[in-house]
Amino acid sequence: MLKVLVTTVPFGDRNKLPLELMKEAGLECVVNPLNRKVTSEELADMIEDFDILIAGTEIIDIKVFDRAKRLKLISRVGIGLDGIDLPEAKKRGIQVSYTPDAPAPAVAELTIGLIISLLRNVHVANLQMHNGVWHRHFGRRIPEVTIGIIGAGRIGGRVLRRLAAFGSPRILVNDIKQSKNIADKLKLEWVDKEMIFQEADVISIHVPLNSKTKDMVCYPELKLMKKDALIINVSRGGIINENDLAAVLDEGHLSGAAIDVFEQEPYAGPLGKIERCLLTSHMGSMSLDCRTQMEIEATEEVVRFSKGLQLESTVPITEYDIQKQRL
Amino acid sequence: MLKVLVTTVPFGDRNKLPLELMKEAGLECVVNPLNRKVTSEELADMIEDFDILIAGTEIIDIKVFDRAKRLKLISRVGIGLDGIDLPEAKKRGIQVSYTPDAPAPAVAELTIGLIISLLRNVHVANLQMHNGVWHRHFGRRIPEVTIGIIGAGRIGGRVLRRLAAFGSPRILVNDIKQSKNIADKLKLEWVDKEMIFQEADVISIHVPLNSKTKDMVCYPELKLMKKDALIINVSRGGIINENDLAAVLDEGHLSGAAIDVFEQEPYAGPLGKIERCLLTSHMGSMSLDCRTQMEIEATEEVVRFSKGLQLESTVPITEYDIQKQRL
Repeated sequence: MLKVLVTTVPFGDRNKLPLELMKEAGLECVVNPLNRKVTSEELADMIEDFDILIAGTEIIDIKVFDRAKRLKLISRVGIGLDGIDLPEAKKRGIQVSYTPDAPAPAVAELTIGLIISLLRNVHVANLQMHNGVWHRHFGRRIPEVTIGIIGAGRIGGRVLRRLAAFGSPRILVNDIKQSKNIADKLKLEWVDKEMIFQEADVISIHVPLNSKTKDMVCYPELKLMKKDALIINVSRGGIINENDLAAVLDEGHLSGAAIDVFEQEPYAGPLGKIERCLLTSHMGSMSLDCRTQMEIEATEEVVRFSKGLQLESTVPITEYDIQKQRL
Repeated sequence: MLKVLVTTVPFGDRNKLPLELMKEAGLECVVNPLNRKVTSEELADMIEDFDILIAGTEIIDIKVFDRAKRLKLISRVGIGLDGIDLPEAKKRGIQVSYTPDAPAPAVAELTIGLIISLLRNVHVANLQMHNGVWHRHFGRRIPEVTIGIIGAGRIGGRVLRRLAAFGSPRILVNDIKQSKNIADKLKLEWVDKEMIFQEADVISIHVPLNSKTKDMVCYPELKLMKKDALIINVSRGGIINENDLAAVLDEGHLSGAAIDVFEQEPYAGPLGKIERCLLTSHMGSMSLDCRTQMEIEATEEVVRFSKGLQLESTVPITEYDIQKQRL
């Protein structure tokens, strides 16, 4: 009987279907007993007996692989592959699949909510009202501002399409390749990142974490931004340097930030002390439908594998090449 | 020289144009020295010397009119007329004008932000993260839920049009009259309020405050709602009974609420103790462009009046009739 370790949590929490699918397929399944994101050391200690790993954003590196003697498949719930050493997996004949489309609608919708919250100071007013302070904050509307989107793929593209309902803001977009017709109703200006940092009132980041995007936004980039600009990261921790962001906010630069993802999760750093920094706990994909969809798709890959069927959502070779370039 | 009292604050704060317009027109202008919403007693003590009042949401009742011997015009920054005793103003020959269109885009955009914040528990996560607590909240996306809109006029209609960008939620709408083609892309179900309370996952209220809408949502209506439903009030305080809402939330009913308007402002009541109640400080119209637009429109009426020109935005007779029905 194949044994499956699930590290991503919560899993099968609101919808039991993923657990039922594995049971029906005769798979033995253990869900992460620590009930939080595991370190690679912890994962190394857990992995030995398992044939299949249903993973979240944990680090799966050589330390893990060295102990994972039976591992044949990593099925990733979600899209980012920054945690997995893909070339090492390939060398050892371990297949990797993922669910690249499922989280996008949830992340995009949350992004729109965060843009409005930041522009209108909803988060600051709420903290103040819960502390007995009444202050009527001025805000700005989406069509009044220049919005900068870095990364216009599955998620960034959806953010752009939803923005079109709010009038016609000026929109600056940066991506490694220009896509046409992302958002018919919007006139997009494809520009370099420097122009986005200098001219946007709201910047939202939708790129994967890799060697080229790690620390993409550090102190100098944040200082390039307008004094009253806003920045959002719902992609991956480490793309905006958290300590630099905290330093810049402490200096009084920027009107606010919304950060959903952190280098170390759970996060407990200096941003938690800054009122105008809106913090959420890696909830981008945590809508009931998208999370369930991600869990089901990842589980279906596992079931296919267990029956010797062809996998449907293996990670494309381009992702391996990107990681090789890091070395 | 005509003397103008401005009670609404802030006024001319980010954009000085309203103050400059009055100066150019040779008007003497005094802005509310208390720098907060005044009571009708305070307003009565202030009003005696003034010919014109640029008003916010204060109560302007017989106590005020009895002292307002020189008053000839009330120019309201905003749309709600619940604070002004219109029949009494008419009896004394005092004209009343308002700015009904200017706030709508700002209120509608904020409403969408509040819907997403509530659905995704952004406000709860932010409070927790600022207290060092990491919990990944499950949420729902707009197309997954049934949305109930009570009041589909200037603001409710705009909310509906913006919702269309987020997919196809089921939308229940209630208004005293059905408008066609509010939102082409959405299939609206026109229903009674009871059905909205029973079936909607998110209810947002966009009606004026009058004798028919005061306490429209009290304990029984809140208890009719689904246990995990959400409710938003960005219209006027008093339409949802605040104490009943606090009681219902304390009982564990409803997943959350977002309240921007209160019977008594500044608000300092029991909702401030409830984590899943998102509170803002009457900020619906407080986007820089809409607030400026409102202040300029209200000031332009004042300038027209001072030059003996015809007013362009006097309150229609139907509003007087609605208030007469109260008596």
